[in-house]
Amino acid sequence: MLIKFDFNNMMERTLGEKGFSDAQLNEIAPAAKTAFDRFAAKRGSGMTGWADLPYNQDDIVADIVATAARARKEFDNFVVLGIGGSALGPIAVFTALCHFRYNDLPAEKRGGPKFFVEDNVDPERMLALLDVVDVRRTLFNVVTKSGATSETMSQYLIISDILKKAIGDGWQKHIVATTSESKGNLIKLARKEGFKTFFIPDGVGGRFSELCPVGLFPAAMLGIDIAGLLKGAADIDKACSSSDMFRNSALMAAALQFLAMKGGKNISVMMPYADSLKFMADWYCQLWAESLGKAVDLDGNTVNAGQTPVKSLGVTDQHSQVQLYTEGPFDKVITIIGVEKFRGDVVIADGAEEFPDVNFLCGHTMGELINTERRATEYALTRSRHMNNTITLPEINAETVGQLLMFFQLQTAYCGEMLNVDTFNQPGVEEGKNATYALFERKGYEAKRAELDAAPAKLDKYII
Amino acid sequence: MLIKFDFNNMMERTLGEKGFSDAQLNEIAPAAKTAFDRFAAKRGSGMTGWADLPYNQDDIVADIVATAARARKEFDNFVVLGIGGSALGPIAVFTALCHFRYNDLPAEKRGGPKFFVEDNVDPERMLALLDVVDVRRTLFNVVTKSGATSETMSQYLIISDILKKAIGDGWQKHIVATTSESKGNLIKLARKEGFKTFFIPDGVGGRFSELCPVGLFPAAMLGIDIAGLLKGAADIDKACSSSDMFRNSALMAAALQFLAMKGGKNISVMMPYADSLKFMADWYCQLWAESLGKAVDLDGNTVNAGQTPVKSLGVTDQHSQVQLYTEGPFDKVITIIGVEKFRGDVVIADGAEEFPDVNFLCGHTMGELINTERRATEYALTRSRHMNNTITLPEINAETVGQLLMFFQLQTAYCGEMLNVDTFNQPGVEEGKNATYALFERKGYEAKRAELDAAPAKLDKYII
Repeated sequence: MLIKFDFNNMMERTLGEKGFSDAQLNEIAPAAKTAFDRFAAKRGSGMTGWADLPYNQDDIVADIVATAARARKEFDNFVVLGIGGSALGPIAVFTALCHFRYNDLPAEKRGGPKFFVEDNVDPERMLALLDVVDVRRTLFNVVTKSGATSETMSQYLIISDILKKAIGDGWQKHIVATTSESKGNLIKLARKEGFKTFFIPDGVGGRFSELCPVGLFPAAMLGIDIAGLLKGAADIDKACSSSDMFRNSALMAAALQFLAMKGGKNISVMMPYADSLKFMADWYCQLWAESLGKAVDLDGNTVNAGQTPVKSLGVTDQHSQVQLYTEGPFDKVITIIGVEKFRGDVVIADGAEEFPDVNFLCGHTMGELINTERRATEYALTRSRHMNNTITLPEINAETVGQLLMFFQLQTAYCGEMLNVDTFNQPGVEEGKNATYALFERKGYEAKRAELDAAPAKLDKYII
Repeated sequence: MLIKFDFNNMMERTLGEKGFSDAQLNEIAPAAKTAFDRFAAKRGSGMTGWADLPYNQDDIVADIVATAARARKEFDNFVVLGIGGSALGPIAVFTALCHFRYNDLPAEKRGGPKFFVEDNVDPERMLALLDVVDVRRTLFNVVTKSGATSETMSQYLIISDILKKAIGDGWQKHIVATTSESKGNLIKLARKEGFKTFFIPDGVGGRFSELCPVGLFPAAMLGIDIAGLLKGAADIDKACSSSDMFRNSALMAAALQFLAMKGGKNISVMMPYADSLKFMADWYCQLWAESLGKAVDLDGNTVNAGQTPVKSLGVTDQHSQVQLYTEGPFDKVITIIGVEKFRGDVVIADGAEEFPDVNFLCGHTMGELINTERRATEYALTRSRHMNNTITLPEINAETVGQLLMFFQLQTAYCGEMLNVDTFNQPGVEEGKNATYALFERKGYEAKRAELDAAPAKLDKYII
């Protein structure tokens, strides 16, 4: 049961001159093949260690499952302290695979701790968390590869201080550290304090980390079948083993977006038609934005590449964004994610006999309604000549979610090769970090501070 | 205490050739004045009734407050059934002004019912809701002006059927209908069943409805100061009463986005640096997308206008989107929303003495950290010559949230005038609705069904 990628509505057959021709596809196929080959050549080395994760973690999975089984009984709350990929992946998989109102369920129905992901440094939010969790009954998973992430380390310092005061001896049992095995602050702290640790492999960056312990441990804490996630990832990876884009869905998806970007489509909308997949779109947005948004290419040319990802939700955003998608500029590609069979359904009851504009719904199910609206939106987008494609999951389970994660990772890697950028770095994040250091007067950042101080003061006439 | 709009970093003084010159601003000022005058001329009439909402609701507010005071004691759960503006406004104001972990608080601390907004027709989500709320202890607020919104009416039919079976006589006391007073299905149902009703004025469309009972009743149910919301809206409205854009922040904001669009910037990022304002960005995204995304202008010319709004969150998305914002294409305007003073703060404890890359944070607060990172991101964006501006709230309270809502509504109305589009309709939503009707074989949609059936079948070669 593999996910399917349907790009009928990217083509001139349905879009007319707004679509791609078969000739255009054939023209781009050699570049796609080159991208595949280039990625295949580096696969597993450097920062592409994520590609091996479906295959090389048997012992790690066993450790995670055993640790989680114990901790699920021991704690009432499980809190991830992390930001970026360390948060977006766990949130996406949790939302996809757990009960939609998980935290509102009674403990016995939940079968595990309540779940919170803290991925910001808003003080009001931290205070709110402390209002609702008893730290003595809470396990914190601190996730940062370097142990130098300001946001996560601030949270760690605050929480460890509270734990020490509330618990005293043994507070360390409330922390699991997920970090680099070989370097950084957090591994040193973990060794000193004796925290349980899981390791982030060197070749796995934040946005490609969901299938390593960064994502697997939180998933296991939530009772999710992590072996299933990895099996799904392996399945789609094997299905995408051809350098012929007509036989490799992730490569075709990359090539189509590449062509669309070249044609001026600088926006990629990700629109799942399932509430449970809402945060897969958030996870995708980081992957796509950080990987492809690059000032220079691998040859040092200034390119200011990148396509802006937009998260959307069907049917909800039909009442928010689809007006723009159908009538607005031809500047975007809309990727719909559909689900063939939901995990439950609800019949729409009678009671609108006198209202023909409502009564036609009665006797149908919500599952029929959401999927019919999905088809209708696809039709409306196509009729207005706006490029769209659809990824279909036969159903939502650990394996298909694992497939989806790996599909997008592969698509991103291939597209990065086609754009000739470094898909795996994020140099643009440094400037803001350095400015933060300077503003906090961190030692060694005096020059940056001087630069900030020398920036022109704001003009009052530009403030209303 | 008014919100401030700072557009220093839209200008060539800080952005060089990537910014606007004073001459460009002066050139556009007459068009902005015309937009102001055109909107002023129609204000309160047609679909601009929303502009009067801060001033004409004394009796309605009294009714809402009294109704909510009773219902807050009577029910354990409060559920909004609505979609689009009927959901986005209530969610935005709830998140801005209630405890960040409101539903996780014990009932006595919460002081009112748990809160749920159901704005989709995903069957799994409906089943999940029914797992966690006892309908016998739940008030449902059904919100649809026409009473013909498929999603909301489906929910209504499902819920009213369950209520009848669970409660029998008196089930009607569990429903409050917010709808048109004069037309549509829901008012007829409400009159027949005797539901408590609140009315949506004729001149108030979904995305401009937060300050009418659509938003005010849910806010009052949550204990929010709705008079404060309206006072804030009135305050900024009065502060934006000049046709001179240099003295009208919403008009200046509209003119700058208009200029940016003309310069090819087809993306508007809304990036609050406060978790509580995260969903203000969602609300803004509907407002901006549906209002300005139009195929034709008021003279009937095909324009495919519109700027794609993107929601972002600081500091969180510094680890997801800012790489793209600083290094990617010059295709966007980033609007940061900052908060001067948070409603609480947390000191970052010591414990990193041996790690200089973390220790510099110790002794500072999370409030300082989030605001310093906000300044640092502003600096990084500006240094990389990407247009950005900042809206600052002195603090987050009902009045400043009311200001923000009205500010964006005015900005949108002015910008619609400058683009010469109908800001208040949404014709592009109809095609999808009609296709849904046709697929469900609703009577009267036979021609549309035939059209759908005549569309070319999907080609297998375009599915992998």
